[in-house]
Amino acid sequence: MAVYTEIGDDELITYCAGYELGEVLSCKGITEGVENSNYLLTLTSGLYILTLYEKRVKQVDLPFFLNLMNHVAQAGVPCPRPIADRDGTSLRELAGRSCALISFLPGMSPKRPKPFHCGELGRVLAEFHLASSDFDMTRSNDLSVGAWRGLLESCGRLANDLSPGIYDQLETEIEILEREWPTELPSGVIHGDLFPDNVFFRGEYLSGIIDFYFACNDCYAFDLAVCLNAWCFEPGNSFNITKAATLLNNYAEVRGVSQKEMAALPILARGAALRFLLTRLYDFTHTPKDALVVVKDPMEYWDKLQFHKTASNPRDYGWKL
Amino acid sequence: MAVYTEIGDDELITYCAGYELGEVLSCKGITEGVENSNYLLTLTSGLYILTLYEKRVKQVDLPFFLNLMNHVAQAGVPCPRPIADRDGTSLRELAGRSCALISFLPGMSPKRPKPFHCGELGRVLAEFHLASSDFDMTRSNDLSVGAWRGLLESCGRLANDLSPGIYDQLETEIEILEREWPTELPSGVIHGDLFPDNVFFRGEYLSGIIDFYFACNDCYAFDLAVCLNAWCFEPGNSFNITKAATLLNNYAEVRGVSQKEMAALPILARGAALRFLLTRLYDFTHTPKDALVVVKDPMEYWDKLQFHKTASNPRDYGWKL
Repeated sequence: MAVYTEIGDDELITYCAGYELGEVLSCKGITEGVENSNYLLTLTSGLYILTLYEKRVKQVDLPFFLNLMNHVAQAGVPCPRPIADRDGTSLRELAGRSCALISFLPGMSPKRPKPFHCGELGRVLAEFHLASSDFDMTRSNDLSVGAWRGLLESCGRLANDLSPGIYDQLETEIEILEREWPTELPSGVIHGDLFPDNVFFRGEYLSGIIDFYFACNDCYAFDLAVCLNAWCFEPGNSFNITKAATLLNNYAEVRGVSQKEMAALPILARGAALRFLLTRLYDFTHTPKDALVVVKDPMEYWDKLQFHKTASNPRDYGWKL
Repeated sequence: MAVYTEIGDDELITYCAGYELGEVLSCKGITEGVENSNYLLTLTSGLYILTLYEKRVKQVDLPFFLNLMNHVAQAGVPCPRPIADRDGTSLRELAGRSCALISFLPGMSPKRPKPFHCGELGRVLAEFHLASSDFDMTRSNDLSVGAWRGLLESCGRLANDLSPGIYDQLETEIEILEREWPTELPSGVIHGDLFPDNVFFRGEYLSGIIDFYFACNDCYAFDLAVCLNAWCFEPGNSFNITKAATLLNNYAEVRGVSQKEMAALPILARGAALRFLLTRLYDFTHTPKDALVVVKDPMEYWDKLQFHKTASNPRDYGWKL
């Protein structure tokens, strides 16, 4: 739940006059997005999303994100596009923030994903990877294996407030993953945060993927590992292999997957669980108790991590050889 | 900032199938409204507001609010209308809450009202009072003078955490207002909460008034007194008599105002300031320090109250005899 920055009405009208999109009819702060302030803007020409970038997003990364959206949208991936103003600029400023006006995509995020959602996700994720393969900008994954030790250390022993002894257990886990982390897998631009919140459906069809603000260069299979964590566990954190199988096999129908990539899936899934565990733990240890945000439970990813530690083979995720 | 209740996507699709409004294209939680959860719903037929009534709104009052909106909208007041489903019902249930689907009104709330906003407000407020005069339901004002002593007592001595000694000062103020409160002024259904948040403009024209969930029967001039408090003070709480004059005189051009009503304005404005001071004080003393809400500053209304105590004549508010 976001909206941190208030926009004056005169300021907004002046801002929108910079586009050829008509008069401002309304502007409602929406509760989507965590890092940024998002508004659903009604102009006479239609609906738009206005995103104000708050401080957690690095300014220098914004052209990467906006150009990426444009690039993959042009290739047919259902994702929002930044809209250029009369001067051809899409990264602008409003209310003291960098901002962009972005096309509105219809659709609803599944609150309880079903196997068909996972199948659509696999197909579109593969299309995104194919579409991003000739994108010419790069951004390193600053939340990959090399960052985890530092993240844990910055949480410090406060981590043990969450679960006694978890600091040492996580340190051991990080050591294992640093040692066994796969290299030289097929790589390119990944989404990096493809949770159900960031995927829209109309009926049984995926109508949009949004929120590219964790996109970066990494191995493609890491995106699959994120999706396995985010889409294929039931409430209570039991693993649903039907969902995973649909996701992986639909993905592989669109983008050819090597045996090496598939073999790396258990360790990548374990790493993806740890990545979300650590960023949630960071928020848990760094958010003042009286702050106006809900901190997501890091232990959800501890449970998922335990599952991945028992997996030794891509078949444990429903992958058909 | 609201949205307390999460709606499942299947649940929402089933709900919307009860109307003849087309397919659900999107549903975004919006940050408007404090008492309820509000969603901006895009259906193939257009935009709608879906309101889920949270526990602070009494169930028994909902037909009054919804029928009132319908009644005054029919008379031409720019306000949203509850939409009837295929069975003719507008008060329904979703996600365990009473709810209503309401027409979407374009427009933006002025963040810094200017005199022309206050003039439009006066005109439309008078139209609302004329339109509601033949509405046949009633609801008593449970936040009027008779409620203030109880409100203060329920805050208790914790009030003094806000400002030392304020409890006794407020008790004295309530005694004065109880003694001097006017009776037998022209009465009918008032809005009761017409803050800038609840009023939309398109350019220089008022395009909508919303949020009728404090509407009740009381003297019409009390609505003016609320608006004087909510619209006619500058940041820093100095009084802007130009705004007040425009508000009052535009109002009186549409609905004839008696000398008696105008003479009561200073005491009513003082009471209105106290009413918002007390409900904010109630929130201040009853909201856990770690709750996910921003408590509005009660002292803003303490300052406004001091101004009204110096006013002795409607001319102090710019009223032209």
